Amino acid sequence: MALYVQKFGGTSVGSVERIKAVAEKVKRFRDEGHQVVVVVSAMSGETNRLIDLASQINDEPTPREMDMLVSTGEQVTSSLLAMALHKLDVAATSYTGGQVGIQTDSAYTRARIQRIETDDIQADLDDGQVVVVAGFQGVDDEGNITTLGRGGSDTTGVALAAALKADECQIYTDVDGVYTTDPRVCSKAQRLSSITVEEMLELASLGSKVLQIRAVEFAGKYNVPLRVLSSFEDGPGTLIVAEEEEASMEEPLISGIAFTSSEAKLTLLNTPDVPGVASKILGPIADANIEIDMIVQNVAPAGDYTDFTFTVAKSDFKQTRSILQDQVIPALGGGELRGDENIAKVSLVGVGMRSHAGVASKMFRVLADENINIRMVSTSEIKISVVIDEKQMELAVRALHSAFGLDKDSIQGE
Amino acid sequence: MALYVQKFGGTSVGSVERIKAVAEKVKRFRDEGHQVVVVVSAMSGETNRLIDLASQINDEPTPREMDMLVSTGEQVTSSLLAMALHKLDVAATSYTGGQVGIQTDSAYTRARIQRIETDDIQADLDDGQVVVVAGFQGVDDEGNITTLGRGGSDTTGVALAAALKADECQIYTDVDGVYTTDPRVCSKAQRLSSITVEEMLELASLGSKVLQIRAVEFAGKYNVPLRVLSSFEDGPGTLIVAEEEEASMEEPLISGIAFTSSEAKLTLLNTPDVPGVASKILGPIADANIEIDMIVQNVAPAGDYTDFTFTVAKSDFKQTRSILQDQVIPALGGGELRGDENIAKVSLVGVGMRSHAGVASKMFRVLADENINIRMVSTSEIKISVVIDEKQMELAVRALHSAFGLDKDSIQGE
Repeated sequence: MALYVQKFGGTSVGSVERIKAVAEKVKRFRDEGHQVVVVVSAMSGETNRLIDLASQINDEPTPREMDMLVSTGEQVTSSLLAMALHKLDVAATSYTGGQVGIQTDSAYTRARIQRIETDDIQADLDDGQVVVVAGFQGVDDEGNITTLGRGGSDTTGVALAAALKADECQIYTDVDGVYTTDPRVCSKAQRLSSITVEEMLELASLGSKVLQIRAVEFAGKYNVPLRVLSSFEDGPGTLIVAEEEEASMEEPLISGIAFTSSEAKLTLLNTPDVPGVASKILGPIADANIEIDMIVQNVAPAGDYTDFTFTVAKSDFKQTRSILQDQVIPALGGGELRGDENIAKVSLVGVGMRSHAGVASKMFRVLADENINIRMVSTSEIKISVVIDEKQMELAVRALHSAFGLDKDSIQGE
Repeated sequence: MALYVQKFGGTSVGSVERIKAVAEKVKRFRDEGHQVVVVVSAMSGETNRLIDLASQINDEPTPREMDMLVSTGEQVTSSLLAMALHKLDVAATSYTGGQVGIQTDSAYTRARIQRIETDDIQADLDDGQVVVVAGFQGVDDEGNITTLGRGGSDTTGVALAAALKADECQIYTDVDGVYTTDPRVCSKAQRLSSITVEEMLELASLGSKVLQIRAVEFAGKYNVPLRVLSSFEDGPGTLIVAEEEEASMEEPLISGIAFTSSEAKLTLLNTPDVPGVASKILGPIADANIEIDMIVQNVAPAGDYTDFTFTVAKSDFKQTRSILQDQVIPALGGGELRGDENIAKVSLVGVGMRSHAGVASKMFRVLADENINIRMVSTSEIKISVVIDEKQMELAVRALHSAFGLDKDSIQGE
């Protein structure tokens, strides 16, 4: 007998039929003798419906009232799923986040879980009940309803699994696992049977939106075995594990390739290399709440001029360019501005990189062989990212996927 | 400065525009320096939408899960109204029933309020906040969400007014007050400026659906001044007061005329008049959860046979007839069954009746003058009900309305 926390997202509970299908799936686990806690999102479309109502009433609703409003979506699903389980003669009780003892801070719309009181859930489980929990929400110390931010139901699931010391937290989504890269771009992409938390974090932050980053961090921190599976078809999915538990004997060099064309690049050439130049460039941009991703700085050999390049979201490109032109260049006393919106970032991710030299040089060679020009490079311990021309992104992904042995027929043991 | 509890029903908050209009109305009270607690229902249609979702999943959902589900409707409205107040620069905070300290028993879908902890509300009011409360709901001692039954938002309003010792509980609806009778049937019907709790109870139970009966009882018990007003137009509405406070010097004999054609009549003729005959007749019907309204029993002069007549809802007529035919008559050892679905009940209500003889005889004379045959009579201290042919109902209402001086041009001081 195992204890599973199972999280079903909005698409998985998007209709009466799908809620019934989730109940059938949960019942199969109960029939096998397992204990089950189910975390549900709002039915797909419901959260947007509520946000739309709010926006018709107040263009700047307070975060507290937004949480009061949108938290109802998950509550509705939780009660409907309990009813669907009852229909199958499965004992079940639904709870809001607050009822089930999920205590958060008071940072409305992006609250953080502080503690979970599991006594009541454990009593229900011991009593043979399936416990259905409205995801994405909790209450603060004063009993106000809070939400954990978009995708927060994943976090609810992992946090409950950690608090209950569950055997596995299963995240049911509309994909059947984590892939080596996006199958829509590379037809030879394949599902990974397992991946480490760190790799998953790099892939998630780079644009593979299977799981919310915070949930993965949480799983890593509390050592919760996390599995991504499909709601709609049976299969083993992808297990996300702490590195030391990685099952595969022969660890592949690279686990996956992430890519995005949602960024733009800005370069300041020939800026006087005064002390603190980087903060003088990035400070005004951060003040405007613009997030910066990659940063590269080259100092000229003579040491008195510097070239400074960084990327921002495409949607922030124009505003960032104005800030540089109007504030930063005058403040620095010189510099020449270049911008490029037609870029893509392609990243290799893999813990194997740590112990293998030569990943970067192999990556550059593969791209050179395809006549792909590298504009920018950034590395971390388990990741190498390059910025290239947006038009060459898919070509780069496919060439790297093949060269690093990720193509369907080249990995075994799946 | 007064403290008002204002309750707005589903139609009054049925759209974004109407929620904004409610916010404007609340703001006017705040601008005059009053403290305001607002109780809201679900937006019209929302509760039915949720019930429909449930019915697609489980034809017999548990009451606990139904309460978990439908209570979200009021929560949504409460947060939207708080946002609308914020938009008008009115400080406001929304709360669920549980958050605001409404403790109930655990009778899901028809819970009764046991106590209200008003400290937090009072603190908010003293802080200049409008307190917006999701009506119709509370929590039991274990923190489970409960609802107070259909129309329970009225009860929430009155209970909060009692607990807070409010100066007035204002129930905003889609009518502008309580009328002497239904204006759709009698064009000379007029709004009453005030009515006693007892009269209101008789009118409500007889089919004038302006207010939930429990709310009126509650108002009477805790001596809460209750006012029914229109959400959509300004006006004084109707004040519902304890009898001793009735303002009018010259109390009218009759306050209003209620009527309904939703009942059917059954008669057992020539039943042996054995001891306990009434319970032998009505017991099996009560066992089938059929509610009985009027009851009349005549004993034959010789004393050995009795005629027994009673009314039930038209929808229960066929089942009641079967029970009488198949169980009651055989058990009693005789009796002849008559049924009539084409009846109407017309009732005069008024506390003035107590001190004035002759109301009944005047009523019967008025009906006789219109050639209306009375089939059944039932009286209470402040009410006389007659059962007549359904086809003559409207004629009877208009004749009585005029004869008892209720027509528009015959009452002064409105």
